[in-house]
Amino acid sequence: MAKELKDLTKRSENYSQWYNDLVVKADLAEQSAVRGCMVIKPYGYAIWEKMQQQLDRMFKETGHVNAYFPLLIPKSFLSREAEHVEGFAKECAVVTHYRLKNSPDGGGVVVDPAAKLEEELIIRPTSETIIWNTYKNWIHSYRDLPILCNQWANVMRWEMRTRMFLRTAEFLWQEGHTAHATREEALEEVVKMINIYADFAENYMAVPVIKGVKSANERFAGAIETFTIEAMMQDGKALQSGTSHFLGQNFAKAFDVKFVNKENELEYVWASSWGVSTRLMGALIMAHSDDNGLVLPPHLAPIQVVIVPIYKNNDQLAEISKVVEPIVNELKGMGISVKYDDADNKRPGFKFADYELKGVPVRLAIGARDIENGTIEVMRRDTLEKSVAQLDGIASHVKDLLEKIQDNIFKKALAHREEMTTTVDTYDEFKEQIEKGGFILAHWDGTTETEEKIKEETKATIRCIPLDGDKTPGKCMVTGRPSAQRVIFARSY
Amino acid sequence: MAKELKDLTKRSENYSQWYNDLVVKADLAEQSAVRGCMVIKPYGYAIWEKMQQQLDRMFKETGHVNAYFPLLIPKSFLSREAEHVEGFAKECAVVTHYRLKNSPDGGGVVVDPAAKLEEELIIRPTSETIIWNTYKNWIHSYRDLPILCNQWANVMRWEMRTRMFLRTAEFLWQEGHTAHATREEALEEVVKMINIYADFAENYMAVPVIKGVKSANERFAGAIETFTIEAMMQDGKALQSGTSHFLGQNFAKAFDVKFVNKENELEYVWASSWGVSTRLMGALIMAHSDDNGLVLPPHLAPIQVVIVPIYKNNDQLAEISKVVEPIVNELKGMGISVKYDDADNKRPGFKFADYELKGVPVRLAIGARDIENGTIEVMRRDTLEKSVAQLDGIASHVKDLLEKIQDNIFKKALAHREEMTTTVDTYDEFKEQIEKGGFILAHWDGTTETEEKIKEETKATIRCIPLDGDKTPGKCMVTGRPSAQRVIFARSY
Repeated sequence: MAKELKDLTKRSENYSQWYNDLVVKADLAEQSAVRGCMVIKPYGYAIWEKMQQQLDRMFKETGHVNAYFPLLIPKSFLSREAEHVEGFAKECAVVTHYRLKNSPDGGGVVVDPAAKLEEELIIRPTSETIIWNTYKNWIHSYRDLPILCNQWANVMRWEMRTRMFLRTAEFLWQEGHTAHATREEALEEVVKMINIYADFAENYMAVPVIKGVKSANERFAGAIETFTIEAMMQDGKALQSGTSHFLGQNFAKAFDVKFVNKENELEYVWASSWGVSTRLMGALIMAHSDDNGLVLPPHLAPIQVVIVPIYKNNDQLAEISKVVEPIVNELKGMGISVKYDDADNKRPGFKFADYELKGVPVRLAIGARDIENGTIEVMRRDTLEKSVAQLDGIASHVKDLLEKIQDNIFKKALAHREEMTTTVDTYDEFKEQIEKGGFILAHWDGTTETEEKIKEETKATIRCIPLDGDKTPGKCMVTGRPSAQRVIFARSY
Repeated sequence: MAKELKDLTKRSENYSQWYNDLVVKADLAEQSAVRGCMVIKPYGYAIWEKMQQQLDRMFKETGHVNAYFPLLIPKSFLSREAEHVEGFAKECAVVTHYRLKNSPDGGGVVVDPAAKLEEELIIRPTSETIIWNTYKNWIHSYRDLPILCNQWANVMRWEMRTRMFLRTAEFLWQEGHTAHATREEALEEVVKMINIYADFAENYMAVPVIKGVKSANERFAGAIETFTIEAMMQDGKALQSGTSHFLGQNFAKAFDVKFVNKENELEYVWASSWGVSTRLMGALIMAHSDDNGLVLPPHLAPIQVVIVPIYKNNDQLAEISKVVEPIVNELKGMGISVKYDDADNKRPGFKFADYELKGVPVRLAIGARDIENGTIEVMRRDTLEKSVAQLDGIASHVKDLLEKIQDNIFKKALAHREEMTTTVDTYDEFKEQIEKGGFILAHWDGTTETEEKIKEETKATIRCIPLDGDKTPGKCMVTGRPSAQRVIFARSY
């Protein structure tokens, strides 16, 4: 592990390579034999499971239920919604046959041409179409509304340039699809969910986010309005971390989903959809980690505390273990996930480096002399600070420390974002500033034309029109035309 | 609902139709627009989630971890293991292209012929090949073993005749894939997992199962030995409910996965794989339910207790609610999932029928007079018996009752299986008995030839060679040749 640690590229040398190294070396994921598809390894999956559990809890607390819809979507479904097909038909995996047969030359198997599907099927890139085709049968009257379904699923988009967690052909996500009787209720749902995502990002991932709406250009294909949470990575680039879409009646019209309202009139149903994916893993890794490896927020760390015994012989180990056992039990009783690593085939130094690489928030180390003194060594992963604590009351101390670490990680990320956020008024300033990275607050005239010119010339996109903060109107930095408020520009993942 | 209940076919009239009706009317699942693929509706999915949570707990308690491997498998991987390809290549979904384009005639989208994959990809029917191709990079030394991975995933097998939950083109499952240094350890894992499945089936699903090994003919394609748990449905047919495979070194050889053992020699790795799927939902439904609807075992019921108020006006409702609230809280405190259904747009009779249809184990009904008397009406779903209980101590009473119901459902299913299990010695007897359904214990000479003759002539297959019970040798009922022990024959799902 010492060797592997040395191999971890430094952020200052090559941030992108540092990320790729870290994903592999911390045992989070690896490339698979299938282009653009990754294997999520057990340690990476354990973090994703913690995310899932918390999100699932938040969805259920707000009245949502889970369901499961088919992986495959008839090709013709995509075409039903004009903008949707433009956005999603271009890069998708197409199933054309349903059987293989032995190769006539005896070398393996070939596609059986006799088993050609009448209509090709698409591996879902997102499920609005198949779900609204289903909702048609579920919804007849206002009494059937609202429908508040979520599904945890795999989806596939045939991306040409992929990066683990950030952009992969197959990824895991959740997609909520809700149906409502009124426009207001659907919009309320859209806002409720972007707030839940922001709450999750800030209070569990410890990643500060800016809530806002997307420009027309960056909207979900088929949405009237897309709400987003945007996070800033350590290199100053933005990462879109979750989106919630107001779909209006677009999919209801495409799939002919009408209901009888309270006034006994037939009306199209109003819709929302919202999702976060394994991309959040990328955000989590890039927002907090350092040149020693992962830094995980305690609220999502699969192992929150590791205890390493320092001993010379089995008698010492036995003595240490006797002291550690009740501490482990007390921590577990507090709902803290703790690992006592008494494996005797690795040295303490190796273990220390390994748990640092894996981002375990708190490391306790205890030797014979500590026991004599009634003390224990405490190392916190976020600052790498070591201290000596009393054995007496150590569980409560660790519990408090975990919350302090959670808080500190968030504050650090927030301070970084604030430091890397600037306000500019001229396009020249903008071009200079964007090279330094970070978020730029600037006025924009609201047109796709101006947005695309800026993107082409600077590689920066409008991340969002923020919901909170300064709403003062002004003049577009490029065209001088009126601007309703400053928007956030950044280069992004 | 009264109307819908009437529409539920009776088991005695048409068991198969009863099952199909029940799946739809109890809101468990429905057919989708994609041939052979179902939509799992929220109530059905909630039961599946309860199954998942418990199984996941049992897997983790025995040292397993979750991971995620790609959905798509390169076609050539299937051919690496000779028997595996024969078993799985025949009916699978094949991805041949990665892009659609606008149709030249303007009518929707068509497959872009320019976006043809060099090598076709198969939607996983099971993941041994892609996982063993991955394990090759994870395993070098005996120190890397064992690997004890599980994944929760969707898989696809292009079945020609499908039935919801029992046999669908896409289904949800878990698949464990373990790697070991020795044959003994791998076999131990195989047995451990079939025991966990049996424990789950009997103590959570309340479905008694017979553990055994499959005949060569019924083995998993690529396995040396397949262990199975076999359950009996109410119509006397068998349902294979979970399998655990000893794969020997077959996949290690196919994917060249070797390790340096303790003696410093290169050796192929030993493997197991094991899985249960949404098919268990079919077993759960068919084992216990009746002509009034679902009967769910309390350990897996999403709603364990429902409380229905009987009132004439809002004052009465308020009074009842005041009494019910602390009961709800006490039950929740005991970890019991309870719903207080005070919806005022449905009558009590409608609610009663609906919760019966949905299989809620305990229903409490309470009216103004009950409050005067300090009583509450208790209905248990398994026997449909009503009784009057004291309000005082009702939570404990319900808690005990839930365990009684769990126990009763299991015993009822066990008694049914025992009643429907016979021992025969001649093939004539066998042919007569098989028409009556149930399990038949008979001697068989151990050959595939005899097994296939029996299957052809009677539609019965060998469900398993049981691990427990009578091991007395005898003579094959068909050929008179020696038989090591009686095996279990049945017609099956």
